[in-house]
Amino acid sequence: MSKNTGYKPLRVETLTARLGKVAEISKQLGDDTSAWNVKEVGDGNLNRMFVVSGAYGSIIIKQALHYVWLVGDSWRLPLYRAYYEYHALTRQASRAPGSVPQILYFDEAQALIAMEFLEPHVKLRRKLILGERVDALAEFLGEFCAQTAFRGSELSMQSEMKKADVALFAGNVEIPAITEALVFTDPYYLAEMNNHTQGLGAVVEKLRSDVTLKVKVQQMLQRFASNTETLVHGNLHTGSVMSTENQTRVIDPEFVQYGPMGFDIGMLCANFLMAYFSQPAHRDDDLADYQNWILGVIEQTAKTFESEFRHLWATERTGMLYPASLFEDQGDDSTAACDAVLAGIWRDAWAVCGIEMHRRCLSLVHNADFEEIEDVAIRAPLEARNLMLGAELILSAEGLKSVNDVCELARAYNSKDFL
Amino acid sequence: MSKNTGYKPLRVETLTARLGKVAEISKQLGDDTSAWNVKEVGDGNLNRMFVVSGAYGSIIIKQALHYVWLVGDSWRLPLYRAYYEYHALTRQASRAPGSVPQILYFDEAQALIAMEFLEPHVKLRRKLILGERVDALAEFLGEFCAQTAFRGSELSMQSEMKKADVALFAGNVEIPAITEALVFTDPYYLAEMNNHTQGLGAVVEKLRSDVTLKVKVQQMLQRFASNTETLVHGNLHTGSVMSTENQTRVIDPEFVQYGPMGFDIGMLCANFLMAYFSQPAHRDDDLADYQNWILGVIEQTAKTFESEFRHLWATERTGMLYPASLFEDQGDDSTAACDAVLAGIWRDAWAVCGIEMHRRCLSLVHNADFEEIEDVAIRAPLEARNLMLGAELILSAEGLKSVNDVCELARAYNSKDFL
Repeated sequence: MSKNTGYKPLRVETLTARLGKVAEISKQLGDDTSAWNVKEVGDGNLNRMFVVSGAYGSIIIKQALHYVWLVGDSWRLPLYRAYYEYHALTRQASRAPGSVPQILYFDEAQALIAMEFLEPHVKLRRKLILGERVDALAEFLGEFCAQTAFRGSELSMQSEMKKADVALFAGNVEIPAITEALVFTDPYYLAEMNNHTQGLGAVVEKLRSDVTLKVKVQQMLQRFASNTETLVHGNLHTGSVMSTENQTRVIDPEFVQYGPMGFDIGMLCANFLMAYFSQPAHRDDDLADYQNWILGVIEQTAKTFESEFRHLWATERTGMLYPASLFEDQGDDSTAACDAVLAGIWRDAWAVCGIEMHRRCLSLVHNADFEEIEDVAIRAPLEARNLMLGAELILSAEGLKSVNDVCELARAYNSKDFL
Repeated sequence: MSKNTGYKPLRVETLTARLGKVAEISKQLGDDTSAWNVKEVGDGNLNRMFVVSGAYGSIIIKQALHYVWLVGDSWRLPLYRAYYEYHALTRQASRAPGSVPQILYFDEAQALIAMEFLEPHVKLRRKLILGERVDALAEFLGEFCAQTAFRGSELSMQSEMKKADVALFAGNVEIPAITEALVFTDPYYLAEMNNHTQGLGAVVEKLRSDVTLKVKVQQMLQRFASNTETLVHGNLHTGSVMSTENQTRVIDPEFVQYGPMGFDIGMLCANFLMAYFSQPAHRDDDLADYQNWILGVIEQTAKTFESEFRHLWATERTGMLYPASLFEDQGDDSTAACDAVLAGIWRDAWAVCGIEMHRRCLSLVHNADFEEIEDVAIRAPLEARNLMLGAELILSAEGLKSVNDVCELARAYNSKDFL
């Protein structure tokens, strides 16, 4: 990783002049830069994004910023996160082919990545607020989580390569630190940047005074910060997923780090559960149907994860963990070993799921699913269901038998009144 | 870490000429190199060791070799392990002051460390075979394990420094690979370099056909290889401990890596248990007394670990994990959190303990405690007790309430006949 010497933020007016001679880019857009059209699409908190269109097509230019948009330039962040995002994207592309936008060009000094423009994809979170469905969504997401988890671990990778990769990603300090604070710690005390919906005070107080809950959350933080099972996306919420009616891609892995194999799928399920609980404020007619569809996506995502993981276990177990020499080569079935690994993954996943459900209502960065409900008298009780289920998942993560238990709990909490 | 350019193994004949001009060394020995006396003390498998004496005193020169003595030069090992040993020693010296030999000089290119000569210390394993006692042994070892575990973790360290350190030690690949294979995997199948005492066949077969046991061992391997809770010594057996009648030091941390906080104390307890089970072959008169003394050391080591860990928890919890903002600052006691962390440590420790008890009788590198019992008819039943208790510890690691349970089990197994 080199220094970002000569870094200059791109602007709409300067982008063509600065990138017009980059062969990897002009090949995608056409050499005639006078025909290029540059549009800034400020979406997200940490980066500047541009759609650049030319005679041949369009691409995305993503450049890291020195500061967090949401907070202003008082919160400065290292540009090197583009370097980690680039390395995350190349690994995801090879472990789950077709799951991420194609990378066209990377300029480390400018903290800049040029990549495939996904069109007509929109963020999955937006689709869920609008009540839209996506075909094969669960199958895609379950496979993505299973493939990246398995193939990035020593179930599959040679230890030497994995350790070199652990060393590389250990350089990413400030970005994981955001997760460590905003996700695992801030929700549980009066942190400076916190905010929560009016009316939730009693529920928030209940969570913050539950010592058992806080211990479980910090145990999960310890596992998150001191665990190198696999390379995780690190921020796999529904705003990091883009879909059409029938195609899905995963974007924005700048929170990449080594962590528990259950981290991504846990965070993902949390965001579906928040979409689920927020629905009564977004629609009337097809409410029950659409909520059932969301729970169906959660169930199917988890089941696809399991079946894909078991498939990879049977066909790609080439790493040092649970070697065939100890099982199959001795005539012993290794199903019990796979069961144990999956049980550990789900234990982590449901704890992470509950924690993500908390932080999105209590800490700095809230979910649009709830945030766009303008009437706080409507929003608060829906968020309360989400917060209370979050607590139950954290406290009972070890006892949940399968995703069906989680969906049953969600159905039960969906008609409860906590305020 | 640089390359070992110009590396040349030291010899008794060349040592003085090569090191005579190193100020850090001649300061310890005296400038008159004609008075230096060099003695090779080949002890250990991976290094060449010399005691160099001069007018002022004596020092140890330890130089890494390209190959493993025990196996011959077919098994080659990187010289860079001296670099990691050096960095481990400096960290241990600062986290547990006075616990390791003083480092005088480090030459990375020559993979060479000059350090304090411990005299009249002898290896603790030898003392245990001879039936000797060491005052304050348990207190020293319990504190060493607790201090290095706590102060090397994010309970104490700032995350940025810990992550930089994780990256540094992730470069140590081949040495942890020895542990991964010899400790966690080889004992449980017919690995090429294995050997075990004649007469143990049925017991070994029983272990290797126990799928539940093998799954537990591999889960522990996964935790060992994918866990960066703290910087562990990595090879803390009784041959890595040197004692006089009342003073103890820890040496040889070349197997250093980030790993679970319970790893070192688990391996250490295993070596005391092996000393315990081997005693009937080493003495008659004071057998019961001495065995009780060993169990007392195990109990007191574990209790010192707990009390020191709780003391550090109360006084030095300066890292991001279990912050005071979530507990004390809200008027909540954090004892439940410390209890949970300690429970996790002991769960790992007793699993590691059982695994170490297995590998030392089944894999490549056996313990002198058993190995020096020449009559295999005497050795085998003692090893069988050790192997069977190892299995029980692995299988019941989660259910053991305290070290007292382990010592009770040891007492029970000490009179069982498994052959």
